[in-house]
Amino acid sequence: MSAYLLSPASNSALKSHLQHRVPCEHFMPDTDSSLSTVLHNFQSETTRKQSDNMGKTEIRTVCKVDFDKPASEQPQLHNRWHPDIPFASSIKDGETVKIECVDWTGGQIGNNDSADDMKNVDLTKIHYLSGPFEVEGAQPGDLLLVEIMDVQPFQDRSWGFTGIFDKANGGGFLDEIYPSAAKAIWDFEGIYATSRHIPGVKFAGLIHPGIIGCAPSAEVLATWNKREGELVAANKLADRDVAHLPQPINTHAGAASKEIAEKVAKEGARTVPGRPEHGGNCDIKNLSRGSKVYLPVHVAGAKFSVGDLHFSQGDGEISFCGAIEMAGVITINFKVIKNGVEGMGLKSPIYIPGPVEPSFGPGRYIYFEGFSVDEHGKQHYMDVTVAYRQTVLRCIEYLRRFGYSDYQIYLLLSCAPIQGHVAGIVDVPNACTTLGLPMDIFDFDISPAAALKAGETKRDLGTCAFETGVTEGKVTNGGKNSQISFGGGLTYKE
Amino acid sequence: MSAYLLSPASNSALKSHLQHRVPCEHFMPDTDSSLSTVLHNFQSETTRKQSDNMGKTEIRTVCKVDFDKPASEQPQLHNRWHPDIPFASSIKDGETVKIECVDWTGGQIGNNDSADDMKNVDLTKIHYLSGPFEVEGAQPGDLLLVEIMDVQPFQDRSWGFTGIFDKANGGGFLDEIYPSAAKAIWDFEGIYATSRHIPGVKFAGLIHPGIIGCAPSAEVLATWNKREGELVAANKLADRDVAHLPQPINTHAGAASKEIAEKVAKEGARTVPGRPEHGGNCDIKNLSRGSKVYLPVHVAGAKFSVGDLHFSQGDGEISFCGAIEMAGVITINFKVIKNGVEGMGLKSPIYIPGPVEPSFGPGRYIYFEGFSVDEHGKQHYMDVTVAYRQTVLRCIEYLRRFGYSDYQIYLLLSCAPIQGHVAGIVDVPNACTTLGLPMDIFDFDISPAAALKAGETKRDLGTCAFETGVTEGKVTNGGKNSQISFGGGLTYKE
Amino acid sequence: MSAYLLSPASNSALKSHLQHRVPCEHFMPDTDSSLSTVLHNFQSETTRKQSDNMGKTEIRTVCKVDFDKPASEQPQLHNRWHPDIPFASSIKDGETVKIECVDWTGGQIGNNDSADDMKNVDLTKIHYLSGPFEVEGAQPGDLLLVEIMDVQPFQDRSWGFTGIFDKANGGGFLDEIYPSAAKAIWDFEGIYATSRHIPGVKFAGLIHPGIIGCAPSAEVLATWNKREGELVAANKLADRDVAHLPQPINTHAGAASKEIAEKVAKEGARTVPGRPEHGGNCDIKNLSRGSKVYLPVHVAGAKFSVGDLHFSQGDGEISFCGAIEMAGVITINFKVIKNGVEGMGLKSPIYIPGPVEPSFGPGRYIYFEGFSVDEHGKQHYMDVTVAYRQTVLRCIEYLRRFGYSDYQIYLLLSCAPIQGHVAGIVDVPNACTTLGLPMDIFDFDISPAAALKAGETKRDLGTCAFETGVTEGKVTNGGKNSQISFGGGLTYKE
Amino acid sequence: MSAYLLSPASNSALKSHLQHRVPCEHFMPDTDSSLSTVLHNFQSETTRKQSDNMGKTEIRTVCKVDFDKPASEQPQLHNRWHPDIPFASSIKDGETVKIECVDWTGGQIGNNDSADDMKNVDLTKIHYLSGPFEVEGAQPGDLLLVEIMDVQPFQDRSWGFTGIFDKANGGGFLDEIYPSAAKAIWDFEGIYATSRHIPGVKFAGLIHPGIIGCAPSAEVLATWNKREGELVAANKLADRDVAHLPQPINTHAGAASKEIAEKVAKEGARTVPGRPEHGGNCDIKNLSRGSKVYLPVHVAGAKFSVGDLHFSQGDGEISFCGAIEMAGVITINFKVIKNGVEGMGLKSPIYIPGPVEPSFGPGRYIYFEGFSVDEHGKQHYMDVTVAYRQTVLRCIEYLRRFGYSDYQIYLLLSCAPIQGHVAGIVDVPNACTTLGLPMDIFDFDISPAAALKAGETKRDLGTCAFETGVTEGKVTNGGKNSQISFGGGLTYKE
Repeated sequence: MSAYLLSPASNSALKSHLQHRVPCEHFMPDTDSSLSTVLHNFQSETTRKQSDNMGKTEIRTVCKVDFDKPASEQPQLHNRWHPDIPFASSIKDGETVKIECVDWTGGQIGNNDSADDMKNVDLTKIHYLSGPFEVEGAQPGDLLLVEIMDVQPFQDRSWGFTGIFDKANGGGFLDEIYPSAAKAIWDFEGIYATSRHIPGVKFAGLIHPGIIGCAPSAEVLATWNKREGELVAANKLADRDVAHLPQPINTHAGAASKEIAEKVAKEGARTVPGRPEHGGNCDIKNLSRGSKVYLPVHVAGAKFSVGDLHFSQGDGEISFCGAIEMAGVITINFKVIKNGVEGMGLKSPIYIPGPVEPSFGPGRYIYFEGFSVDEHGKQHYMDVTVAYRQTVLRCIEYLRRFGYSDYQIYLLLSCAPIQGHVAGIVDVPNACTTLGLPMDIFDFDISPAAALKAGETKRDLGTCAFETGVTEGKVTNGGKNSQISFGGGLTYKE
Repeated sequence: MSAYLLSPASNSALKSHLQHRVPCEHFMPDTDSSLSTVLHNFQSETTRKQSDNMGKTEIRTVCKVDFDKPASEQPQLHNRWHPDIPFASSIKDGETVKIECVDWTGGQIGNNDSADDMKNVDLTKIHYLSGPFEVEGAQPGDLLLVEIMDVQPFQDRSWGFTGIFDKANGGGFLDEIYPSAAKAIWDFEGIYATSRHIPGVKFAGLIHPGIIGCAPSAEVLATWNKREGELVAANKLADRDVAHLPQPINTHAGAASKEIAEKVAKEGARTVPGRPEHGGNCDIKNLSRGSKVYLPVHVAGAKFSVGDLHFSQGDGEISFCGAIEMAGVITINFKVIKNGVEGMGLKSPIYIPGPVEPSFGPGRYIYFEGFSVDEHGKQHYMDVTVAYRQTVLRCIEYLRRFGYSDYQIYLLLSCAPIQGHVAGIVDVPNACTTLGLPMDIFDFDISPAAALKAGETKRDLGTCAFETGVTEGKVTNGGKNSQISFGGGLTYKE
Repeated sequence: MSAYLLSPASNSALKSHLQHRVPCEHFMPDTDSSLSTVLHNFQSETTRKQSDNMGKTEIRTVCKVDFDKPASEQPQLHNRWHPDIPFASSIKDGETVKIECVDWTGGQIGNNDSADDMKNVDLTKIHYLSGPFEVEGAQPGDLLLVEIMDVQPFQDRSWGFTGIFDKANGGGFLDEIYPSAAKAIWDFEGIYATSRHIPGVKFAGLIHPGIIGCAPSAEVLATWNKREGELVAANKLADRDVAHLPQPINTHAGAASKEIAEKVAKEGARTVPGRPEHGGNCDIKNLSRGSKVYLPVHVAGAKFSVGDLHFSQGDGEISFCGAIEMAGVITINFKVIKNGVEGMGLKSPIYIPGPVEPSFGPGRYIYFEGFSVDEHGKQHYMDVTVAYRQTVLRCIEYLRRFGYSDYQIYLLLSCAPIQGHVAGIVDVPNACTTLGLPMDIFDFDISPAAALKAGETKRDLGTCAFETGVTEGKVTNGGKNSQISFGGGLTYKE
Repeated sequence: MSAYLLSPASNSALKSHLQHRVPCEHFMPDTDSSLSTVLHNFQSETTRKQSDNMGKTEIRTVCKVDFDKPASEQPQLHNRWHPDIPFASSIKDGETVKIECVDWTGGQIGNNDSADDMKNVDLTKIHYLSGPFEVEGAQPGDLLLVEIMDVQPFQDRSWGFTGIFDKANGGGFLDEIYPSAAKAIWDFEGIYATSRHIPGVKFAGLIHPGIIGCAPSAEVLATWNKREGELVAANKLADRDVAHLPQPINTHAGAASKEIAEKVAKEGARTVPGRPEHGGNCDIKNLSRGSKVYLPVHVAGAKFSVGDLHFSQGDGEISFCGAIEMAGVITINFKVIKNGVEGMGLKSPIYIPGPVEPSFGPGRYIYFEGFSVDEHGKQHYMDVTVAYRQTVLRCIEYLRRFGYSDYQIYLLLSCAPIQGHVAGIVDVPNACTTLGLPMDIFDFDISPAAALKAGETKRDLGTCAFETGVTEGKVTNGGKNSQISFGGGLTYKE
């Protein structure tokens, strides 16, 4: 750190840096300077641990979990909502931190091929959340602006599970029809998940926390218990719990003293439903990486908690244990917006989704590459024109395999909405261009797999129009003595 | 119009309307009130012709073309850039108008199966543009903000063409390799184009004008002629025109007097290349509907021209006559930004693309519909919960055909990123919900066409996990006596 | 037409055309040949009217509406679902046709500033649908594959309305809270809608039909009437119609004889709710242009009807008359899939959305243009490298206005995800390239409106790092004697 | 993991698993079974290390780098292309592995505020690549299908750099204009990058490798050296290296013997340009996570190398060291397609982009949340209808702050393209729905920051139409005695 501060070389730049560093908190350009007046701090330098080697920086982890110990014995976790659960740790206003989370069941479900654990799950224990965290300076009436910088599974626990509970122990959206317990295990490889229990499927996760929110105040908590109690009292259904009231058994009140823990056990709201006053268990599938959530603060220090991480989820999370449930690490930036609840009139959280939602049907382009080496093998110097011509020729050769004539393809590439990009323009002597061909404009398969066997089933694809008497276009070769690069073979005046 | 103004019923609302009507010109929320100070007028009431029947309104057409007459004889068209070509018509600052355009060749290419017309095209005539139009109040140094509200082919000319010119008469990007003339005719059906000459292809057009710009001043024009003349003079290539200098033959100077027409013929710049000072023939494929272009103004009244309409084009428009060329109608809103050239420091136009770019690979979701009629045929009243459950069941039935068990699908729909929408919530008694299933998460084809023959090739897709000893999940039916709708069959307490 | 068939020039191409024309029906490349075996016809030549001028083609309109006549007197319209309403017209399997539609109320709502018409709307009359149409060859058990090629308002009726009904006459989703009648009129300009009643808003329509479906069989109709009747009978609500049973008054049975009309009046299902057996009034906002719907057929000839066109709608269509309701023209391609209901096991329609859904937040790029004229004014021949360099320089000049140094921008444009496209590569001598700069990577406004006044509020944006002792990067000018184009000014060896 | 293998409970499921596990390699549904015949292995079980705790799985890392040691001394790295560089490690056909990479300079650039290191960079050393790796079974003529499962920076090195080289040492695309060295350091927080040297900017990375490819054969290498040598020989430019020929100094030949190392030093191609025969240094900005590249194999075992990781890059990578350069870890799945070069006729690699490209301008929706607690505070049981109504009310309250009346908003939310989702439907008793409001349909700022100060600058936004004599819509409250949930307050019959 000393090197950073003292390097004479960096002095002027650094000074300017320290003077002028402006808040980057608003990703949206339409937000304006007035917001910054209500934001206290920004990207506190303390967020990153700087070793004396400048190159090693790391974001602070405020909550670590231990997979060799029951979740119920880890004081930085809890499984009820209550204002008296003590802080697990403290976070500065403006800070970005990492928070580790166990899966929502606290490790009850195994990476194996039996659903016994699903059938016998103990739902009095759920959900194990990380926290509650103090966000410095947050007071009731403020909003906590939570920006989800990233969510990742643990490197050494790259799997998750989706379950169906037995109708008699948890159930789900379709339990009247499908009452049995069942389970699927998912393996993560980078952005993708696959399951040995549901073969034939692979998709990129829109990874997100199922639960995120601040602790209720005593008043808010009382409201919850009252209205849900009334619903239970009015229930006419024979075999269905219409709400889960506070349940002392297996209550985990974090680092609470025995006295407080007993209070929490008695009064603490279950984590199962989301609730309008704070959000909580919303299970919103696109509240994912890059999203910003505006959370009402009900108690001093916010007492923020997060957990129930999902690798992916469908709208509704229909089977109840329906997301790809996992343990993992969430990276969050916190900012306090003073008096934001009144200022924005929020009765429930709002959020703005992030920029990396997977677009299914994305790879519907085949990209070709071309370089400034012409068709005679001649090397040109950084000539994008040559490179783009080569890229086009690569695409013509590819489509020719399916039965089109070169002239048909030349026409098609002129008018179909191909993407022509300048890819790399600095690596001498080869400029690189790409051409993206949309696959979905064809009514047959032109994927690489289809190209491999295109010869077997050559289509008769007719012809484009030529001049009278001509049935086929000429293909020629150009001159080779190009001094400049155009065309890779122009003939010069003598 | 009198009805509009005098209707007593509408008096108070109208008064409020007239008082409060604020400019809508900035689609982008980030633009702000300061822009409006530089915009003179807005959405002039004169734009729309109001007959005495309020319901009939129509946008004014400032340029009509006649397909029974040569383009060269229509005074509202022209085919050279020159400051002295007279105004074809006048447009108010703030007005939205329609402008009809012929295809760029002025009708030289026919909807037939021979490329003779392509081979023999007369390129001294091109491009026929509509205009030039006066935009009231525009002065040199201003910017013309041109918002492309729509572009459409003519209802009774729903076709276009893509051509390859003979190398000896026009050529193209690959003419050293492909020297023959060729042609493809495209038929338009709504948003799609297909061609009998390139079967197997169908795509939605990203429809746009190939040429859009304001006339050069005398100074700008002189610059063009000088620098392009120098290039021609320095040309060492034996058989290639490296630029097209002014060419008197077939010059069309619009409604110019003989004297002016001769001047235009002698000095007028060809329309072939786009040029940095005004844009012109840019052939930018996504300068399409909804786009805003900021055009530098060089002469009083702007002398705006537009033409060379394309139903679609690929990056590069590689075959030269490479877009799907067509005649059609463009609807444009015009606004003058005073002193905008200096204000924004623009040396070339900039633009912001519109919001309706076709996303190829878009229909990669299958949507299912569900209503608040439960699986026992019972009608529920506007119950979204019932409707969503039915939608899920429809999807389970569909996927079951491919070999998955209901339980596998139930799990999958819980965790895969399905889209669950509240579609219609007001048509008593049926709420309607939809569920979008992404097709690309499967590694085999689940399209409707594949569903039709799924029975023939049932896959063995394994099983999800069940409890010990169980190999199949139960499927039950629920009670039928639901008073309220949940589950379409809950059992009540006695 | 004779020219088309007899032109000797086109003979060989045409022959090939007629022999090889392959079905284009599957936009999705994943559909396969097996589907074509269940499709009877394709793109019937009779769809397009060919005059003897090849260039004039037009899609057949099978239903025209008359705005000077009450909807109730037009025999090609109807407002109840019943199998006995006679065909309004006939469509071939494979044909694409245009169908005109009145707005859903049949013209009860005016383009004015009073909501009296909304308050007094006669809901016994709605919805006026176009049809029913015979689709040749369709039989019960088939699926009708309906591809929506386009939907457009009438050119001379470019407006629509959104209404709130009085709670006592129609109501809506929030009528317990908002019981008054209200109305907003929307003006269409190309793809956009604005309203004098809701200023400050402008958006592109995702235009679609609210109602689309085939007639019920007598059995299906009986099912509807039974289950909805049971709901009405069981209704305990004091002031709320929970369903609309058949209602003789104002029934419009199309071209039916008096006898049939009476039957329809008595039995015909109201068009208000969508129903699972056929879809109908689904009000699905993205069942728009380019979408494909698979509709179950219940009676011979399908008896397809469509109407309730919406310029735009939100999920839920919450105010009941909630879309932007309009009259207009829908272009549809029809294909019959034999035995498709059983083949796909469909209990309700499914659909695949089209490719042109507006992406809100689309114009979040500013595009710059560059041409192969270098910074010394020298003209280069089709040199994409020069053009791309100029495009980059345009962007540097633009961003410089906000307070960044050229070197900061040069760094930024290298690493931020700018879009660099080859726009036009064939208009000698100017290649044209574009560079798209994403606006949302900045935390302040860089829109053109902001650029105009950037001088007023110059930000202090610090500096990038330079070598020790250097606080500013050099800016030089290059040589001018470039023989070849690279760099617009390289120095050659002597 | 005996439990895994022996658990009788899981026996049948497991058996089915082992029997039926089908290849998931084709993400695209359009690929088909024929591809699998050319793919040898699939997702080898050996890929994942299974400890005795089933829950701990980890993907194998085949290349680790050491930041405490010069890159030139690490035998699993190399910096030239040559067929004789020995394998660094071996990978199975079908395997997914992790590969660590240093930054392209091998650590020459520091996280500090001086560009001295940039100015003095030693370019004879670059690029340091990881590999070459043997892919078992790969032979010349095969294609290597490389699927990029993920790319991430190191957790403890969460930074990168963008640089401008001095014109005299490396230069770049604009070096004629900007000849000085400069540098910007970027900090990574999750998916985002910010820089103290270019404040005001923050964006999500489209993270990718700049270099990816297989080693050339001796023949291919000879071709490269010949054609690039000819270009250098013909160079007329005074001060510009037009290509980088083999350069013995600082050659790193991996684990090669001295003899081989000398050969590599003499013949090995520089890594600077990409080349058509194998791809290599393509610097393609969207060849990112989830992408599939098809690489030609030229030598036995493929000798695959990868490096030059970029957190983000713009098209062209214009400043040469233009991406956000970083060290990191890439996760790749490898498959061999036998004889694929001929089978697909590939002269250059092709690729299909991944599904998680950031969409700039993504968070252009504000999402509201609603739960099945009605406006009277009454708790309903899993009622989506109630939840959706509450969500709508939240949005009305929000927009009301900007000056709209409730009735205007009610109308607007009905017809504007809002997104209404069923978010969570299983957490009793609260269903959760969301409503996405597109911000860009407003012509002023409605972001949360603007909402905070909306009171200060209340707009006069007119009024919607009401019935004659009415100037304001009523707002009522509904009954409270709802037994069922509809409306949160319906009045029942007595």
